[in-house]
Amino acid sequence: MKIDCIVKAPHIYTMKGEGVGYVYDEAIAIDRGKIIEINKQEEIEKLYSAEEVIDLQHHAVFPGFIDGHMHTALAILRGLAQDTQNWMMFGLQPFVQHTRKEDYLLGSKLGIMEGIKNGTTTIGDYGDPMEDVCDFVDRIGVRGNLTQTIREAKNKVYQPGELYEYDRERGEQSLKRNIALYDRWHRKKDGRIRVLFGPQGPDFVSEELLLQVQKEAKTRETKVHLHTQQGSRETEQMIKRYGKRTIPWLQEREYLDETLLAVHLTDATEEEAKIVAKSGASMVLCPGSIGIIDGIVPPSLVFQGAGGSVALGSDQAPGNNCHNIINEMKLVTLFNKIKYENPEVMPAWKALRMATIEGAKAVGVDDIVGSLESGKRGDLIAIDLGKTSMQPLFTHPMRNIVPNLVYSAGGEEVALSMVEGEVIYREGEFTKIKEKDELKNLEKQVQRIGKDAEEDFKAFSHIHRKFMEEGKL
Amino acid sequence: MKIDCIVKAPHIYTMKGEGVGYVYDEAIAIDRGKIIEINKQEEIEKLYSAEEVIDLQHHAVFPGFIDGHMHTALAILRGLAQDTQNWMMFGLQPFVQHTRKEDYLLGSKLGIMEGIKNGTTTIGDYGDPMEDVCDFVDRIGVRGNLTQTIREAKNKVYQPGELYEYDRERGEQSLKRNIALYDRWHRKKDGRIRVLFGPQGPDFVSEELLLQVQKEAKTRETKVHLHTQQGSRETEQMIKRYGKRTIPWLQEREYLDETLLAVHLTDATEEEAKIVAKSGASMVLCPGSIGIIDGIVPPSLVFQGAGGSVALGSDQAPGNNCHNIINEMKLVTLFNKIKYENPEVMPAWKALRMATIEGAKAVGVDDIVGSLESGKRGDLIAIDLGKTSMQPLFTHPMRNIVPNLVYSAGGEEVALSMVEGEVIYREGEFTKIKEKDELKNLEKQVQRIGKDAEEDFKAFSHIHRKFMEEGKL
Repeated sequence: MKIDCIVKAPHIYTMKGEGVGYVYDEAIAIDRGKIIEINKQEEIEKLYSAEEVIDLQHHAVFPGFIDGHMHTALAILRGLAQDTQNWMMFGLQPFVQHTRKEDYLLGSKLGIMEGIKNGTTTIGDYGDPMEDVCDFVDRIGVRGNLTQTIREAKNKVYQPGELYEYDRERGEQSLKRNIALYDRWHRKKDGRIRVLFGPQGPDFVSEELLLQVQKEAKTRETKVHLHTQQGSRETEQMIKRYGKRTIPWLQEREYLDETLLAVHLTDATEEEAKIVAKSGASMVLCPGSIGIIDGIVPPSLVFQGAGGSVALGSDQAPGNNCHNIINEMKLVTLFNKIKYENPEVMPAWKALRMATIEGAKAVGVDDIVGSLESGKRGDLIAIDLGKTSMQPLFTHPMRNIVPNLVYSAGGEEVALSMVEGEVIYREGEFTKIKEKDELKNLEKQVQRIGKDAEEDFKAFSHIHRKFMEEGKL
Repeated sequence: MKIDCIVKAPHIYTMKGEGVGYVYDEAIAIDRGKIIEINKQEEIEKLYSAEEVIDLQHHAVFPGFIDGHMHTALAILRGLAQDTQNWMMFGLQPFVQHTRKEDYLLGSKLGIMEGIKNGTTTIGDYGDPMEDVCDFVDRIGVRGNLTQTIREAKNKVYQPGELYEYDRERGEQSLKRNIALYDRWHRKKDGRIRVLFGPQGPDFVSEELLLQVQKEAKTRETKVHLHTQQGSRETEQMIKRYGKRTIPWLQEREYLDETLLAVHLTDATEEEAKIVAKSGASMVLCPGSIGIIDGIVPPSLVFQGAGGSVALGSDQAPGNNCHNIINEMKLVTLFNKIKYENPEVMPAWKALRMATIEGAKAVGVDDIVGSLESGKRGDLIAIDLGKTSMQPLFTHPMRNIVPNLVYSAGGEEVALSMVEGEVIYREGEFTKIKEKDELKNLEKQVQRIGKDAEEDFKAFSHIHRKFMEEGKL
């Protein structure tokens, strides 16, 4: 039978079953974007003849990583908002004021390319506007699980304890944009793009709008992607407005169910995390981001213990500084070992499952990706086992590939990335776009932002201004 | 004046003074291994004509990183000893039994090359035997601050609570080897190699030998590089043998002073850490290693607060999985933010100082390296600011280079590495050795170790055997 592609590799991690689904010396037959069979190399070569045979002799193949939650637009402000309390006000604020739509689009391009270079094949981006991001995701060939921000709170500098002021018109307009995005892109491009609904937080939209969003999402069989119990500021808003913390308040409104993708749970108690998990809702954990911004390790282990699915997310570059799921795998294991003072509590294979099949379940794409098996889409990456970080290779009596991927790799080991059976990235180059062309105005635009932000940086920046003055940056 | 080399770069971090010593568009004049001047590019070009001009147009230059504590030999067993309690017994033990001298040498080559690729120019290796490691350090051109292990405790499987049995002959022999190593290599090779004294721990050598080692080190004006209060097993041994915890016991014996380089302090109380710091002794912190192995964040901030110098260390590949000081910089900041639930407690620039000038002070090489200034050696690295992880570049009103290096970079950003004014690594290639030739027997030797270790893995491995059986590796 004539097919599009065969991928051969000595080590394939299918992620089928309860573990990592390792198979040795097999091949993956792919046709029209779908995996049609995985079997011994000689079997596959007997049954199929392919347009392209990718023979990976010193590589391990994994399902492409799922990044459950990203604000790629903010990559334009990478490295400007860490090491400070209230990173949004003291770090981002002076720059955000002067960052334009075209700057954010460059940020998204940078962040999406960075994710792909580090092995991500499903981009969980979240932002406003998203039309141009969808277009770039389409052009570069990656998978998108994309969310439009819905926000009703007015943009202004609120005093500590001041309740957010809602602008009904703004809220409705952003919901309309979310619906329009859904209509235009959802399950388009061979199903490569899906659109979720994105109320920014239970404190950023009114109860009425939050409930309406849930209805719209349910009608369309997609998820509500919601920052949930994301910090003490949210808790304060919820207590002041409704007299309740977020989780019990959402529970009373029947908001906790499989439609909900709850992001962060930074400030959730273990009991609250269990309630969310048991409801059927899923979670995105952004270890690096919440570690840098808040110094907190959210209760993902408790969430998983209660039966919930958890995806990893890289969040945003300023404040986390990188879009790299290999980095997030490492951090979720280390942070939990430290949280529980127990090296066994979070082994490498569990982090790999979060980056692949468990992550896919959490964000609602496990029907098509997250594992390598017949019927699923051909989304995979190849890790070069010849890189120093992966050397030496032990296969017996213990394989060290997964521990080395999680604890030693940095991202440059990703030699090839395929989405829907098409190679989109190989040995440092994108196949469908030219990186340099996409970023050609970057330097100029960044200089302009810096120049425009000078006054506000002086006025609002707290610790970074001091660091600049003291020669610490 | 005719000199050997000029290095030009838009961004140079000299690490002089209390901050990061940033200078813009300057050049470094280097002759016979030494920095002779750093000044504006046009000034340097007016004063000197150089054999080689390295014009780094899109790079930031830093002093090469100091790795204060490594067991590079163990890189031959990378990825075999994490995610388990008692990593030495359950992880390493089955393999160590079957690892030969020639295997360990390959491990050291791998670990040292990995360190250099990730920006390390001073290798703080610690092992036994060290002769061949010195030879490799010499050949590859890197700087070595090297320690021979001195051990008196017999190698055997001890029952829980059983006191280590000392073998006086073994202890004396290993001290003799340390002295021989010192005589042959210390301050040789243009001063590129220094030799320290390495009693393995206060529990692994007798009181008598420990005191003798200190005397030998003081006579020779070098340091005692000692695993100190490295865990509960050590505490147990010390209490049982001497009725005291390590730090007070060392203090009584006047062991705490500037000769001592105390590694880990995993199990030290904050009070004990302060005592060590105030004594003038320094510390090596291995964040990744102690995080993976013990789930502990040692008291380095308290140590620094009490005026002590702390170097970073990558320890060993099995159990930490990589030799990468960029990774350790990231982990020391994140772990402390989490330990104190405070994002401001450990900013990027402090980690950079630990990797450079503060680390150099701690391990006793700040007279020649750790900062870029006239009179010091030409040990530096260039970070490629064109890599995605370092993009975009902001220079005004805030520079984001240091936060991006610490929080976003992975290691592949190291474009060039120079030691004693000589380029030893450039764009992925070593200049003095051929990586492939050095590692040509790696695969064969690793297969042999795996085969030989099969029985012991079945007998001793705890969690990894289970993971292999359950398809989790």
